Amino acid sequence: MLKRADNVFQSKLLEGYDRTMNHSGVSGERFSARLAELSKIGLTEQNGSYRIGFSKEERKAKELVKSWMINAGLVVTEDGAGNIFGKLEGKNKELASVISGSHVDSVPNGGHFDGPLGVLAALEVVEAWKVTGFKPERPYEIVVFSDEEGSRFNGGLRGSRAICGELDMDEEIQKVDQQGNSFEKVIEGDGLTLQGFKESKRNLGMIKAFVEVHIEQGSTLERENAPVGVVTGIAGPSWLKISFHGKAGHAGNTPMGARNDALVAASEFVGHVSQIPQSISKTSVATVGKLQVYPNGINVIPAKVELYVDIRDINQVTLNQLTKEIAKKALEIGGLHGVSVEYEQTLNVAPVPIKEEMQHRLIEAVKANGIKPVLLPSGAGHDAMVLGRHVLSGMIFVRSLNGISHNPKEWTSLGDCVQAVHVLKTSIESLTAE
Amino acid sequence: MLKRADNVFQSKLLEGYDRTMNHSGVSGERFSARLAELSKIGLTEQNGSYRIGFSKEERKAKELVKSWMINAGLVVTEDGAGNIFGKLEGKNKELASVISGSHVDSVPNGGHFDGPLGVLAALEVVEAWKVTGFKPERPYEIVVFSDEEGSRFNGGLRGSRAICGELDMDEEIQKVDQQGNSFEKVIEGDGLTLQGFKESKRNLGMIKAFVEVHIEQGSTLERENAPVGVVTGIAGPSWLKISFHGKAGHAGNTPMGARNDALVAASEFVGHVSQIPQSISKTSVATVGKLQVYPNGINVIPAKVELYVDIRDINQVTLNQLTKEIAKKALEIGGLHGVSVEYEQTLNVAPVPIKEEMQHRLIEAVKANGIKPVLLPSGAGHDAMVLGRHVLSGMIFVRSLNGISHNPKEWTSLGDCVQAVHVLKTSIESLTAE
Repeated sequence: MLKRADNVFQSKLLEGYDRTMNHSGVSGERFSARLAELSKIGLTEQNGSYRIGFSKEERKAKELVKSWMINAGLVVTEDGAGNIFGKLEGKNKELASVISGSHVDSVPNGGHFDGPLGVLAALEVVEAWKVTGFKPERPYEIVVFSDEEGSRFNGGLRGSRAICGELDMDEEIQKVDQQGNSFEKVIEGDGLTLQGFKESKRNLGMIKAFVEVHIEQGSTLERENAPVGVVTGIAGPSWLKISFHGKAGHAGNTPMGARNDALVAASEFVGHVSQIPQSISKTSVATVGKLQVYPNGINVIPAKVELYVDIRDINQVTLNQLTKEIAKKALEIGGLHGVSVEYEQTLNVAPVPIKEEMQHRLIEAVKANGIKPVLLPSGAGHDAMVLGRHVLSGMIFVRSLNGISHNPKEWTSLGDCVQAVHVLKTSIESLTAE
Repeated sequence: MLKRADNVFQSKLLEGYDRTMNHSGVSGERFSARLAELSKIGLTEQNGSYRIGFSKEERKAKELVKSWMINAGLVVTEDGAGNIFGKLEGKNKELASVISGSHVDSVPNGGHFDGPLGVLAALEVVEAWKVTGFKPERPYEIVVFSDEEGSRFNGGLRGSRAICGELDMDEEIQKVDQQGNSFEKVIEGDGLTLQGFKESKRNLGMIKAFVEVHIEQGSTLERENAPVGVVTGIAGPSWLKISFHGKAGHAGNTPMGARNDALVAASEFVGHVSQIPQSISKTSVATVGKLQVYPNGINVIPAKVELYVDIRDINQVTLNQLTKEIAKKALEIGGLHGVSVEYEQTLNVAPVPIKEEMQHRLIEAVKANGIKPVLLPSGAGHDAMVLGRHVLSGMIFVRSLNGISHNPKEWTSLGDCVQAVHVLKTSIESLTAE
């Protein structure tokens, strides 16, 4: 079955692949063969990927990438957080490194592109250089970060946070997974230690830049008919938990004018949440994804509605403004309906803007490959968000079929993957040249 | 504990009771003592009532009422559906009976007034006649209907449906309760048989009228500052199950303009549901009480919302019109949001209007007792709804504290109960005189 899925997967990738994209040392065949080989690890019955952080499957995928790194002539190391680095020395060994990569863990029954695409693109750049003979001025490193998704313990982004010194180990050791296993026990099962995590912080002064290739997980590029896009910033999520407290009553015996219906108030609010972002900034979004009605009986007027608003923007000022406006609107609507409203902010992550300097360099690389430059924000967090808080960082998004991700149906055409490799290669050549 | 609750319950009823209401043979003390004694049967830890249909508790309550009927000199019979009748012969034994009563079963952890109030009011009329010496021209019967609430098997109103020949026994025998007991086994445990149910249909030509006293289970009378009200019709519930099918997406990576958010569409619809009834009729109501979001994740745009609309009116024409308008609005809003909409009507009970002739007689009885007449619809179904499909029927509603029912907090002051007895007595004297 694995063998079959493997063949099917690579065949599907190669179907309709335009081989003229194989130039400058980049090979779509190699790329697709590697992606297919990775996809076999933790393959689920729905042909999805099950490689949660610190699992045997994530470990196996890391070992496979390690073997490719070694074959490519890189110096491979693993830090105490399980992050894998494959280093190509620069002409000048003393200079700070340019790094590219992503992760190989997945959510349960996730897709095969979220993570591996960025790792294999970074590796393909080195493979291409072996053909073209390009030698970087400064060191180039390929990274596989541990546990980006955080499917086992809350949080995620653990490998990148570890190298940036953002991981609070006193907090981490409190965590227990759904099976009751402690964080320490789980990482020990992966050959790691708490001490190792603490020692994995890198000297960030020796990282010149980080660039991550990642699937978009949205459909903006599809609508723009562009294979890749340049990320302008990584949105910080701000979550508001809002409760509307009305008054229950019999649906038949309470006249319309005598109601304090929590759901009628909450519904009016949901409508406003969908309208407010446009009035604040082009890059902001707000979503009510989770909503619960109490007591939720067909013939009972809702006494309470509890909902969450997920608010994002790449700009801290407009994100704060939007959060404030949305909370204010909830109170205002509650007042109109005689429904009391309580809210609290349960999450507040600062957005990470991508510096103009990096955006410009990536846009030039896109243009150099004959592609129309499309700029777009990232609504989701990525390892580049963590790195971006400390070092010059950038992201190249790759078109996702129907915007689907975290799902076995996640798909990006091989042509788009290879275009992303070309753009990354041009970017890295530019970044490592100085 | 039972003893204490008993005393507490009657004491609370008598607290502030205006004894000048004890006239024309009616006794608030007797009424409250009986209500308190009934409340001991199936008393829950929250001081609520647990007397579901065909349970030992419902049986015990019926036996207690039987003993009071016998003491009052009535001829007591029980039909094959477990309905208890206490008959006072009229001067003319050949005339059709006037009947009044209600039920003594409750929902799990329900209140002490929903049902018993109507039974005890009907009985108090006979007790009063023993003092005043009134002799009805035609027979007067007090009824305790079985299983009005239907807490054990779907449906309810079983006693009244049985005497009206509305119960489909082929359907009933299919039913199984949550403990896996069949309908037949449960009724046998209560000393009843399927054959008995079939034989319980009465000759409806020998019922002249039915009048039920019942708590309002709403707050209209409280707002009108009236102890009782005359019901103008019993609303039929029409239930629409509506599904909004949008498109899931990452809450961060999908621009506001590129969404098909099922919850945004459903919310707009909920707002309209709260507005449409007023435009159609004064007595109509519509409620979205149950709503479920899928997948219901904080950072996932809702792919699907499933909700129920409970629509009621006492007029069949406007009920149909309202149901049609609401379904149309769902489709229209779905279209605006690129969200597909499906609906089905899962319940459709015909409303039962109360005849002008009966309303008029009850209004006169209210006025005769010096009470301002308030007219109001019943949004909930009652035994009078079943009887009303076949014989002249009426309902007298009694003020409910805060409109609360089906809850241990259900409360009606003794003064209001006694006012209802006086109004019922006047009504029955009028109905039995002819």
